[in-house]
Amino acid sequence: MTLLTRLCEVPYFAVIFSSIKAADDTGYASMADRMMKLAAQQPGFIGVDSAREEVGITVSYWKDLASIQQWKNQVEHREAQRLGKKQWYESYTIRIAKVERQYDFGL
Amino acid sequence: MTLLTRLCEVPYFAVIFSSIKAADDTGYASMADRMMKLAAQQPGFIGVDSAREEVGITVSYWKDLASIQQWKNQVEHREAQRLGKKQWYESYTIRIAKVERQYDFGL
Repeated sequence: MTLLTRLCEVPYFAVIFSSIKAADDTGYASMADRMMKLAAQQPGFIGVDSAREEVGITVSYWKDLASIQQWKNQVEHREAQRLGKKQWYESYTIRIAKVERQYDFGL
Repeated sequence: MTLLTRLCEVPYFAVIFSSIKAADDTGYASMADRMMKLAAQQPGFIGVDSAREEVGITVSYWKDLASIQQWKNQVEHREAQRLGKKQWYESYTIRIAKVERQYDFGL
């Protein structure tokens, strides 16, 4: 058993979300937890890996671009995005990328 | 000034390296540090973001697939890969993905 999202058949898509949090992160942890759970229920969701030190990186994997678009527009997620800009994040980047090649070890 | 790798003109490529370390990580930190410095000197290198909690995620960005291939085959990096499998990693996944869309905030 591993914590890593396993490889699936290419091509599929990755959303690479890298962020720096604002000094006051009141409410952040419960929102992040809720968004992880909600994302996992969306159509086309494959998996998510996440870690935070100075920078936070969350990479979620999706079957196709339509699934990513649908998740982006999900009502509760939109509210989280709005609050994220207003309160929780100092800065972030989001990249949507098509997974074309992959390798694993030890899984 | 931010720690995040800034967006550049699409398309370009991401190498998403997710890993779980083995219990004994003697020598890991200096190798990881050296590899970060070495990667930054390679042709086609754009930037790298990295974080580790239970899972470690390092996303490096590259101008094209040829640059990634060249880095994969770099002599000192190959030795680090060999030692990584032998000593440092319990498991990992590597995904090579073409960045097609992107957004940022606060940069």
